[in-house]
Amino acid sequence: MGYDPFMSSVSQGLQSSQYNPYAEEHNPLAGAGASYYGAQNTYSTPSQPLQYHLYYPLAPIRDTLQPYQRAVFDLFLPESLREDLQKKAEAARQVLASQPGVQSPSLQHYHSLVPLDIKLKNTPGIFGLPTWVWKATSRKNGNVYCLRRVEGFRLTNEDAIKAVNSWKKISHPNIVTTVEAFTTRDFNDSSLIFVHSYHPLSKTLAEHHFPVTTNRFSRPGPVPEKVLWSYLVQLSSALRVIHKAKLAARCIDISKVILTDKNRIRLSACSIFDVINFDAHRRVEELQQEDFFNLGKLVLSIGTNTSPRNMQDLRTLLEQLGRNYSEELKERVAWLLSAPQQQYMTADQLIRDLALHVDDVFVSSSNAYDEAVNHLGRELENGRLVRLLAKLGTINERPEFDGDPNWSETEHRYMLKLFRDYVFHQVDTQGNPVLDLGHIISCLNKLDAGTEEKIYLTSRDHQSTFLVTYRELKKQVQSAFGDLQKGNTKQQQQTSRGF
Amino acid sequence: MGYDPFMSSVSQGLQSSQYNPYAEEHNPLAGAGASYYGAQNTYSTPSQPLQYHLYYPLAPIRDTLQPYQRAVFDLFLPESLREDLQKKAEAARQVLASQPGVQSPSLQHYHSLVPLDIKLKNTPGIFGLPTWVWKATSRKNGNVYCLRRVEGFRLTNEDAIKAVNSWKKISHPNIVTTVEAFTTRDFNDSSLIFVHSYHPLSKTLAEHHFPVTTNRFSRPGPVPEKVLWSYLVQLSSALRVIHKAKLAARCIDISKVILTDKNRIRLSACSIFDVINFDAHRRVEELQQEDFFNLGKLVLSIGTNTSPRNMQDLRTLLEQLGRNYSEELKERVAWLLSAPQQQYMTADQLIRDLALHVDDVFVSSSNAYDEAVNHLGRELENGRLVRLLAKLGTINERPEFDGDPNWSETEHRYMLKLFRDYVFHQVDTQGNPVLDLGHIISCLNKLDAGTEEKIYLTSRDHQSTFLVTYRELKKQVQSAFGDLQKGNTKQQQQTSRGF
Repeated sequence: MGYDPFMSSVSQGLQSSQYNPYAEEHNPLAGAGASYYGAQNTYSTPSQPLQYHLYYPLAPIRDTLQPYQRAVFDLFLPESLREDLQKKAEAARQVLASQPGVQSPSLQHYHSLVPLDIKLKNTPGIFGLPTWVWKATSRKNGNVYCLRRVEGFRLTNEDAIKAVNSWKKISHPNIVTTVEAFTTRDFNDSSLIFVHSYHPLSKTLAEHHFPVTTNRFSRPGPVPEKVLWSYLVQLSSALRVIHKAKLAARCIDISKVILTDKNRIRLSACSIFDVINFDAHRRVEELQQEDFFNLGKLVLSIGTNTSPRNMQDLRTLLEQLGRNYSEELKERVAWLLSAPQQQYMTADQLIRDLALHVDDVFVSSSNAYDEAVNHLGRELENGRLVRLLAKLGTINERPEFDGDPNWSETEHRYMLKLFRDYVFHQVDTQGNPVLDLGHIISCLNKLDAGTEEKIYLTSRDHQSTFLVTYRELKKQVQSAFGDLQKGNTKQQQQTSRGF
Repeated sequence: MGYDPFMSSVSQGLQSSQYNPYAEEHNPLAGAGASYYGAQNTYSTPSQPLQYHLYYPLAPIRDTLQPYQRAVFDLFLPESLREDLQKKAEAARQVLASQPGVQSPSLQHYHSLVPLDIKLKNTPGIFGLPTWVWKATSRKNGNVYCLRRVEGFRLTNEDAIKAVNSWKKISHPNIVTTVEAFTTRDFNDSSLIFVHSYHPLSKTLAEHHFPVTTNRFSRPGPVPEKVLWSYLVQLSSALRVIHKAKLAARCIDISKVILTDKNRIRLSACSIFDVINFDAHRRVEELQQEDFFNLGKLVLSIGTNTSPRNMQDLRTLLEQLGRNYSEELKERVAWLLSAPQQQYMTADQLIRDLALHVDDVFVSSSNAYDEAVNHLGRELENGRLVRLLAKLGTINERPEFDGDPNWSETEHRYMLKLFRDYVFHQVDTQGNPVLDLGHIISCLNKLDAGTEEKIYLTSRDHQSTFLVTYRELKKQVQSAFGDLQKGNTKQQQQTSRGF
C-alpha cells in the first residue's frame, strides 16, 4: 500500500483556545498543539487569519442549487423574513405626527404614546371597564412598552396594586411580561395603567381566527390540528409557570392571547384582574380551575370556529370538534371543560397528558432556532463590512490632505486611493463601468483579512503600477486611520471607538 | 371633561397589507383604511417611508441602562456570539495547504478533505473497525459535509447499503442528518464512506465531560442536574423519531453524541451499524431496547463522572447518582437500565415520563429563539448599509468623469461629492477630524430613507453652500447609479443586481 495522503492527523486549528484569529502576525506552530503536532507540520492546516471568502458557508443543507442558480440575494436574508423584521421595527418606532397646539401626551416616564386599538368606540370588555391600549417609549431606557389604561377605576386598597409585584417575576416565552402598574389622574378621572412588554404587529387570536368580514362566504378554512395542539401546549406551559407562582392567569380569552410570530402565542393582560378584582378575595385554587376551563373553551372555540359569545351548548360543540379532529384532542378538551372531581386539576398533570405534543412543539422550536442562527451567521459579515467601509470613507479624499506630501503620488498612502479605484471603479474593455457587488465585497473581505494575495494597482494616468499585497494595504489603512485618530481631541476619541 | 388627545383611534399603518413602505411617493390615505379612517386624518400616523433612526429598537427589555451607558458596540452583535459564529464559519472554510507533488485528495464529488480526528493512531472504536473522519466540500452544491470512512469493510450484500435510505428521511434537531453512503477503492482497500451533515467545532460528550488531562486534580466539577435532564430529553426526543421510523439508533455512546451549541446535543454516526452489521439480522425491537439501556448508561456515566469502560457495577453507580441528584433522576435512569418486563419499553412512554422536563427544555429553546431573532433584527440594517455604501463608492470620484460637465461644480451631482464630505470628512473647530460612526450611520440611514430633513452642504472652497433634502440626494444617487448601469453591456447588467 502506497503513501496515503489521508493518514495525516491534524486538529482544526481553532479548537486550541490559545489561538487568536484576530492577531496581526500568525505563527501557525505557536498554538497549544505545537509540540504535539510539530512533526506533522508538512500538513499543518494554515488557518486563514480571517476568512476572506464570501459569507457564512453553513446555510441549510437541503437545497441543492447549482452555483449558477444562486443570486446575489442569497448572500442576504430571505426577503420575507427581512420584511417581517423591518415592519416590526418600523411599527415599534412609529410616532404620532405632532399637531400645532396639542401637547404630545406622556404618562409618567412614558412618552410618544401611539394608540394600538383599532376600535372606534369603547365598550367594556372582559374586564368590565373600558380599556385603551398604547405603545409608548420609556424615558428611562429608551425601550418600547405596551400601556393599557383601565378607565374609571378607583383604587381603594393600596395592597391591590402590590399584587402586580408577583407578576413582575414571571418570565416565560408564552407570557407577555408585566413591567409595572400605577394610577394616574392625567385623564381627569381615576385610571389604572398597566405596563407590559411590547410585541409589535401582534394580533389577538380573535383577530386572527375571527376576522371581521362583510362577506360571510370568505370564512377562513379549518385550523390544522397541529396548530390547536401547539396553542394548547404553549398555554399549558404558561399556566404551569403561573400556577407554580401561586397565581392564576384569569384572562385566557381569544381577545387576550396574542400571536407574535408564526404559531407563537403569548398570554397578555396578565395581572389586571388581580388588581381590579382584588376585593373579591376569591381563592387562587378556584381561579386556577377556571383557567383550565377557559383554556378548554378557547381551543373549542377556535376548533369549531365558534365565537365565544355563541358558545352556549358546549356538549354539541364538543361533538363537532370530535368529528373534525382526532379523538385525543376531543378528550383533552373535554377533560379541561369538566368539573374537577375529588382532586383539583394541576398544570403538571396537563403537561404530562400532553407530553408527546410538547415534544413535537419542542422539535419545531429547535428547528426555528437553528434556522435563525444560520441567518444570523450570514448577516454577521455585513456589520464588519459597514465598519470597514466607514473607515475607508474617512480616509480617502479628505480635503485637508489636498497637497499633503504624504498623499502625493510617490508615497505609500497613495495606494489606498488606487485601491479605492480598483474596488469601486472597474471598467470593462469598452470603458463601461463594471458594477459587481461580488467583486466589491470580496475585495473588502480580503482587505479586512489582510491576506497575502497580491494585486496590481495602476495609477489613473496609467504611467505607474504597484504590486501590493492585501496585508500591506491593511497596514496602510491602520496607520492612516491611526493618524486621523491622533488628530482627534481627547473627548472625541471616545466617539471613534465604534470602528 | 375636556378634549382627550388619547381618544383617537388609529391602527398602526403597516397592518393594512396594501401599504408599500418601499414606494417612492406616499399618500398616507391610499391604504386600505382610507375610507374608514378618513375623518380621523388629523391624527393619521405618518408611517415613515423607511425608518431612519438607528437600528432595531426591540432589544431584550430587561436591562435598564441609561442612554449614556450604551456603547456603539450595542448596535452590533454581542462579541461572544459573533466570535462563536465567526469561528464556526472559519472552521467550515478551513482547507489543507496544498503540497508540491501531492494531489489534493477527493472522494467522488467531495473535495478539499480536512481531517477532523485528533488521534494519531487509529484503534478500532465502537464499530469494531478503524474509522476516519473528514470534513469535505461537495462539488454539487458547495455545501460542507462530514465524511466518515470505515476502513477495510468489504460490502458483501448490496442491500446493506440500501439501509441508509431510511435514515436519509430522518430530520430532527437532535440527530445529525445522514446524506448518503458509498463504497470506495481510493484507499487501496475496500472502504465504506458515510456522509453526514457537518456541525463545525462540535465536541463529543466524551471530549466535553471526560477531557484528557494530565492533572488529576483538575477534574471538572459535577454536571448540573438541569443539563442531565436536558440531555435525556433531547436524546429521548431523537429516539422517538428514530423508533417511529422502525429504526434503532444503535450508537448512543458518549463518543458519538456531539455538542453543537450550549447544552445542545445531536446523535451522530447514525446508520453505520445498520450497514456494517447488516448480516447479523437482529430484530429491530431488540435493538431499540438496547437504545434505552445505552441512554441510561450514558446519563449514568456523565452523572457519576465515570468513563463507560469503568462501568462494571451499575448498581453502585446508581446509588452514587442518587446521592448527588434527585430521586426522580435516579428512578428514570434505573428504569432505562432495567430489563423490559412483559412489554417492550417505548420512546412515547419515556417522553410521557419526562413530560415536565420536556416542557422545561421547550421553554429554554423558545427563549433562545427569541434572543436569536432579536439579534437578527439588529444585524439586519447592516446588509442594507453595505449595499448603499457600495453604491456610493461606485458613483463618487470615478476617474472617467474627471472634467465631465455633469460633475462640474454647478451641476446637481456635485452635491453627492459634497455629501460624501459631509458624511465622512467632518472636522471640529480646530480642524481635527471627527470620527463618529454614529454620525455616518445616521446620515446613511436618512439617505436610504430619503427623508425630508434638510442639510447644508458647503463646497471645499467655502464659496458656495447648498440647502438640500435627503430626498433630493436619494434621487441623485438613483439617477447617477442608473447612468452607470446604462453604461453596462447587457451581460454585465445581470451582475449589478446585487445593489
